[in-house]
Amino acid sequence: MTVIGDSPAHEGAEPPTIAQLAELAGVSMATVSKVVNGRSQVAPETRALVEGLIQQHGYRRQRRRVNPAAAVEVLFHELAGDYPVEIIKGVGRVAREHHMAVMISELQGRHTPGSDWIEELLRRRPSGVIAVYSGLTPGQRARLAQREIPLILLDPTGEPGHGVPSVGAGNWNGGLAATHHLLDLGHRRIAIITGPAHALSSRARLDGYRAALDTAGVPVDPDLICQGEFMIQDGLTYTHRLRRLPDPPTAIFTCNDGQAVGVYRAAHELGLRIPDDLSVVGFDDMPPVRWLIPALTTIRQPLTEMAAAATTMLVNLAKGEPLPQNRIEFATELIVRGSTGPVPKIK
Amino acid sequence: MTVIGDSPAHEGAEPPTIAQLAELAGVSMATVSKVVNGRSQVAPETRALVEGLIQQHGYRRQRRRVNPAAAVEVLFHELAGDYPVEIIKGVGRVAREHHMAVMISELQGRHTPGSDWIEELLRRRPSGVIAVYSGLTPGQRARLAQREIPLILLDPTGEPGHGVPSVGAGNWNGGLAATHHLLDLGHRRIAIITGPAHALSSRARLDGYRAALDTAGVPVDPDLICQGEFMIQDGLTYTHRLRRLPDPPTAIFTCNDGQAVGVYRAAHELGLRIPDDLSVVGFDDMPPVRWLIPALTTIRQPLTEMAAAATTMLVNLAKGEPLPQNRIEFATELIVRGSTGPVPKIK
Repeated sequence: MTVIGDSPAHEGAEPPTIAQLAELAGVSMATVSKVVNGRSQVAPETRALVEGLIQQHGYRRQRRRVNPAAAVEVLFHELAGDYPVEIIKGVGRVAREHHMAVMISELQGRHTPGSDWIEELLRRRPSGVIAVYSGLTPGQRARLAQREIPLILLDPTGEPGHGVPSVGAGNWNGGLAATHHLLDLGHRRIAIITGPAHALSSRARLDGYRAALDTAGVPVDPDLICQGEFMIQDGLTYTHRLRRLPDPPTAIFTCNDGQAVGVYRAAHELGLRIPDDLSVVGFDDMPPVRWLIPALTTIRQPLTEMAAAATTMLVNLAKGEPLPQNRIEFATELIVRGSTGPVPKIK
Repeated sequence: MTVIGDSPAHEGAEPPTIAQLAELAGVSMATVSKVVNGRSQVAPETRALVEGLIQQHGYRRQRRRVNPAAAVEVLFHELAGDYPVEIIKGVGRVAREHHMAVMISELQGRHTPGSDWIEELLRRRPSGVIAVYSGLTPGQRARLAQREIPLILLDPTGEPGHGVPSVGAGNWNGGLAATHHLLDLGHRRIAIITGPAHALSSRARLDGYRAALDTAGVPVDPDLICQGEFMIQDGLTYTHRLRRLPDPPTAIFTCNDGQAVGVYRAAHELGLRIPDDLSVVGFDDMPPVRWLIPALTTIRQPLTEMAAAATTMLVNLAKGEPLPQNRIEFATELIVRGSTGPVPKIK
């Protein structure tokens, strides 16, 4: 066995206490405590030294207590559209009950935060982090774990992995229900516009779509599968492209409501009436889609409830209580409105 | 002159120091310091006693420094639609530059927060508060001032008053420009759907509308002025009502974009084409309105820029720097799209 220097920490040993960290760093216990508790008035190089030791050896808090500046940090990959508001509402509802603040970070379109974010987060020391449609690197997850800051993934982009608790929706079932609904209306040429390939939710919706077609004995046509980016523009671009096919689709299932808005625009430009000439099913059921003309048939995922559940998990973990389950999945629901109708008669 | 009890604080005196507060309360300086700094581990009755003394006598921080847990608290009257996201984006942009956290509170539809909010806020001790389309009571403002927590009003509902810094948009000019645009297209029967009576922004838009009509020599008809609540439903309800008038309007100016969505729905139900039979102008220019069919003509107010400016003001005040101006107003801009056209010929 190799012992490096005079370090008291090695494989299998208990993580050091504040006193041991202070000795290792050659600083006072008060200084280590300041770093651990995210206080200011520590020289940057001292902070870096202590942070480095904690990364190397770990650190165990003496006794667990609810964070004095109790706060939920919500990490969004991007602030756009109604999706963030639905989530903040759900987080806020549970946070208020527990007298916790709600803090918002945005990754401006990236799906994992940079190193600056984690340093500032450790300084803010929230009670826990909810990462929405994003994830942390294994290193970032380890830093949070060392500080006993729980992490919950909400609508995760990838496999949560390594026992990270997560909250999601029945995406596969949603894809299945949307496609069944169109099949029931007599459609056989059904296109799908998906989200990005890295999004687990989108993959599940696509698999549900495939399963519904398979079950109905309708062949899956790769020409009818369009990979989008969850953007309104996807619906516009792909609808034009799909309608140029020799045998164009009579129905389009979009993997979010925004894309359906783009389909509406393309249909208008092409002189197609919804649902007479083209049926459309969205996904999410954001509040404004009932106001579209015609009102959008969509798959509802209860984002506000999902966010509330993630926050409850976070509160329990922050109190040191075990979770009854590591993954909570909310059922999705088909909401039939005016954008879907029988397959048009062949002219 | 009356001196009450043995209190060292009286009219005109300097606010007490921590030591003086500790003496008044009969507690240790450490305890007062904990209350002042929002730390835990203070008995509720002790905290209440010290808070009461600070309310009564004030308190002066020894020397000014940037808050160690630097954070901007954004207070929304309600989280709904795209409006909050546009604002959080602007706050986040400036907060990131200054390594500050962004905290969100929601009043669930109320326009001034309850007493629980202010107590928890003082415990969180943010660097400052941005109240969006809401306000604080004079007592709440005083509590923030005592703690030197700056307050900025963004899109204030009422008169900011008492030197409270604020950021707004050129609402009056926006109302004027929307109405001028419709007058230029030949419309004379122009209706307006406003926000609630207590909203200063809505009053200014209405006054701009009146001024444009006056200037053009078009009489202001009270039947064409509908007071709404900034809700989509307003547009639906009032359009139906307006079209039942003996001399119905040929154009409707709505004081937010959501209301215009409701007008679109009503027009569809009434078999009216936009803009052929009815012109519509919105207000805000939220990102999705360019996707309406037809795309909405609207008055753009740069909410994200406004929120960024409010945050910059907050940062400066938190650093103890004076503001060059107490009120910043952003210009609004007419964005002409497809929902406005020439007045229809009389059939």
